[in-house]
Amino acid sequence: MERRRSVYMDHAATTPTRPEVVEAMLPYFSERFGNPSSLYTLAREAKGAVEEARGRVAAAIGASPEEIFFTSGGTEADNWAVKGVAAASRKKGDHIVTSAIEHHAVLHTCRALEKQGYRVTYLPVDEFGRVDPGTVEEAITDRTVLVSVMAANNEIGTIQPVRAIAGVAHDHGVPFHTDAVQAIGAFPVDVEEMGADLLAISAHKFGGPKATGALYVRKKTRIGTFMDGGAQERGRRAGTENVPGIVGLGRAIELAVAGMPRNAARLAAMRDRLIRGSLEAIPDTRLNGHPVERLPNNVNVAFRYVEGESILLMLDALGVAASTGSACTSASLEPSHVLTACGLPHEEAHGSLRLTLGPRNTDDDVDYVLEVLPGIIGRLREMSPLREVT
Amino acid sequence: MERRRSVYMDHAATTPTRPEVVEAMLPYFSERFGNPSSLYTLAREAKGAVEEARGRVAAAIGASPEEIFFTSGGTEADNWAVKGVAAASRKKGDHIVTSAIEHHAVLHTCRALEKQGYRVTYLPVDEFGRVDPGTVEEAITDRTVLVSVMAANNEIGTIQPVRAIAGVAHDHGVPFHTDAVQAIGAFPVDVEEMGADLLAISAHKFGGPKATGALYVRKKTRIGTFMDGGAQERGRRAGTENVPGIVGLGRAIELAVAGMPRNAARLAAMRDRLIRGSLEAIPDTRLNGHPVERLPNNVNVAFRYVEGESILLMLDALGVAASTGSACTSASLEPSHVLTACGLPHEEAHGSLRLTLGPRNTDDDVDYVLEVLPGIIGRLREMSPLREVT
Ligand SMILES: Cc1ncc(COP(=O)(O)O)c(C=O)c1O
Ligand SMILES: Cc1ncc(COP(=O)(O)O)c(C=O)c1O
Repeated sequence: MERRRSVYMDHAATTPTRPEVVEAMLPYFSERFGNPSSLYTLAREAKGAVEEARGRVAAAIGASPEEIFFTSGGTEADNWAVKGVAAASRKKGDHIVTSAIEHHAVLHTCRALEKQGYRVTYLPVDEFGRVDPGTVEEAITDRTVLVSVMAANNEIGTIQPVRAIAGVAHDHGVPFHTDAVQAIGAFPVDVEEMGADLLAISAHKFGGPKATGALYVRKKTRIGTFMDGGAQERGRRAGTENVPGIVGLGRAIELAVAGMPRNAARLAAMRDRLIRGSLEAIPDTRLNGHPVERLPNNVNVAFRYVEGESILLMLDALGVAASTGSACTSASLEPSHVLTACGLPHEEAHGSLRLTLGPRNTDDDVDYVLEVLPGIIGRLREMSPLREVT
Repeated sequence: MERRRSVYMDHAATTPTRPEVVEAMLPYFSERFGNPSSLYTLAREAKGAVEEARGRVAAAIGASPEEIFFTSGGTEADNWAVKGVAAASRKKGDHIVTSAIEHHAVLHTCRALEKQGYRVTYLPVDEFGRVDPGTVEEAITDRTVLVSVMAANNEIGTIQPVRAIAGVAHDHGVPFHTDAVQAIGAFPVDVEEMGADLLAISAHKFGGPKATGALYVRKKTRIGTFMDGGAQERGRRAGTENVPGIVGLGRAIELAVAGMPRNAARLAAMRDRLIRGSLEAIPDTRLNGHPVERLPNNVNVAFRYVEGESILLMLDALGVAASTGSACTSASLEPSHVLTACGLPHEEAHGSLRLTLGPRNTDDDVDYVLEVLPGIIGRLREMSPLREVT
C-alpha cells in the first residue's frame, strides 16, 4: 500500500519558515529579549540584531540600511506606501495610478483612499496580465502623486515591466511604488534597476516568519507615518520592534537571494513540466498568465466546466495543497479579480488552479500531481452542470 | 569575588517570552505553517490554532471570540481603535477626548488626526496621574465620537478609574476605548466591568511574543478598517495572520491571567520594599504616580539634582536594567510627558527612575538594587551641576 503523500504546492500563499531561520530567531524570544529602544546592555544586543537584519535586507535589494523600515508584513508595507505617500502629497495632488491586478493590500487601500476623496486609475492588463507602460503615460495627470504596480503577480505569476513603468512615472516627477512580495527570491530585485522609490517585502513568502515585512523608502521620498506612536524606526514606524521576526527576515532574505539562481532554475523546470503535462493530458485547458515573463514557481491553469474549489478539495483528499487564487480570496466565492482583468469569462476564472512550487518540492511531487490531476478533472467534468450536453 | 549580577527590572518595556509560550509557538513556524485563509488540511490546522487563541484571549477579558481581532501589537491596536472610530464617525462628529498621559500610540495618533481636522481634548491629570471623571463630563460635546483613557499608565503605574470614565462616555452615547497594554496580568481586566467598547492588548508585556496584540471591539461598535487588503479577521484586519504569534498570545494571556492573583501580590510586596527603601535611604526623593492605585510591579521615583540617564548607565554597569520613562522615549532627551502632566518640574522629571518588576525577580534582586542605588545617586549628586551650592 502506498504511503499517503503530502505535497505542498501553495508557496505563493505562504512558505514554511526555514529551520535555519527559526534557529536564528530563537535566542531573541526569551534570552536576548530586550526592547531595542531601551538603554542598557540587553537592549543594545536587540538593537544590534535589528540593525544587522536591516543591513541584510538593504544588501538584498541594493538599498541603504537607512532606507529600510520594518513592518508587520506585506500588507502593512503596501498600506503604508500608498496611504503614506497620498497623505504627504495631499497639497500636490489627489490621484493615484495602479493596476487592476494588484494584490488587495494595494487595491483595497486605494478603495479606502477613494472614500476619502482621492481618485484612482486602475490600469487594464493584457490577456497575459501585463501592464503596458504606455497606459501609465496616458493615465498620469498633474494631480498624480503615486504610481503603484506590482513586480510580479501572486495569482498568475506575471512579471511586470516595472523598470519601464518607473521610467514613465519619473518622467512626470511621480514616485513609483512596487509590491515585490512575490518577487524576492524569484528573480533579482534591485531598487536601482527597478527604479523603485518604495518597495514592499513580506518574509513569509520566502522562508521567513509570517507577519514580518519591510518597506523600502528611497531617501527624500515624501511619505507620512502610518503607524503612529513611539519613536521606533527613526520615528517613522511606531511599535515595539518585532526583534525575532526581524532577525528571521534578515536571515531568510539572505538565504533566498543567495540561493535564487539555482533554486529558480530548478523550480522553473518543474513548473514547465507541470504546465506542459496538464495542458497535454487534459483537454479544454489553458495557461493563465504570461508564458515567459512568469515567476519560476507559478503554475496557473484554467479548466473549463469545473469549479476551482472542487479541484482543491479533491487534491486535498489526495494530500496536495493548492489554491485557486490568492490565499486571501480563496475562501470567498467571487471570481479572481486578476483572472477577470485578464479577460477570462467567469466560468473559466472559477475553474482555475494555482500550483506554486517551493524548494522542498521534488520531481516526484510533480509526477504525483500530473498523475492525479487528469482523473480529478475528468471526474468533476462528468458531474459538472457547466458542461454542455453533447 | 562576587559573580556579576544581572537584574532585569524593565518589564513595562518588554518581558522575556515564557518558555512554555515559545514551545507552543514553535510547531507553527515550519510544520503547521499553513496560511489560515487557505482551504486544505494544513491551512485548517493553522486556522484552528488561531481560533483557539482567539477564544483564550476572549475568555481572559470577558469578551466573545467574535469581538477579538489580532493585530501587530499594542501600537496597532491603539492606532486602529482611535483612527478607525474617528473615520467611521466622521459624519457624527470630529472630537476626541483623551488624557495627557496616554502612551504615544494614542497621543501621536490623536496628533495625526488633528492634522486631518479632528479636534482633541487632552484631559489633565492630578499630581498622582489620575484623570477625574468629572473632567470627561465637561469635555464631551455633541461632536465627541470617542473617549480614550488608558487602564494603567506605563511610566508611573497609575490605574485610572476607567469604569467611571466609561460611564460618563456612555451617558452621552460616546464609545469608550481603553489601552489595557499594561493592565493584563496585573489586575482583573473585564470588558463588562470596565465598560470598554474597545480595548488594546500587547502580548510582549505579559510573557508573550513581541509584535502580537489584539483589539477588542464590542459588537455594534462602529469602526473603520485600518489595515486594508485581504479578508482576514472577518474582513476587518487584513494581512496574513501571525499564526505563531497569535498562538503565543493565547497561551501567554491564559498563563498571565491564571497566575495573576499570586504574582501580583508577590510583585506588590517587592515594589513596596523598593519604594520604601529608596525613599528612606535617599534624601530629596519622591514617589511618582499614585501611592495606592498603582500597578503591582511599578516603582517610579524622582531623585532631585540628577539625570535619569546617568542613573541608568550606572545601574547598567552594575547589571541592572531599568528605565527613565517609557521605552519609546527613553532614547530621547525630552522630559516625560507623563511626569510633566503630573506637575513635576523638568529637573525632577529628568531625574526619575522607573523599575518595573516581573515574575523572575527575587527578593535578592530587590536587596541588590537597594544596596547599589544610594551610592549611585550620591555619586551623581556630588558631580551634579544641578545641585545648589550650599
Ligand atoms: C503580491 C502580494 N502583496 C501583498 C501581500 C500581503 O502580504 P502579507 O501576507 O505579508 O500581509 C501578498 C500575500 O498575501 C502578496 O502576494
Ligand atoms: C500603555 C502602552 N500602550 C501601548 C504600547 C505599545 O504597544 P507595543 O509595544 O505592542 O507596540 C505600550 C508599550 O510600548 C504601552 O506601554
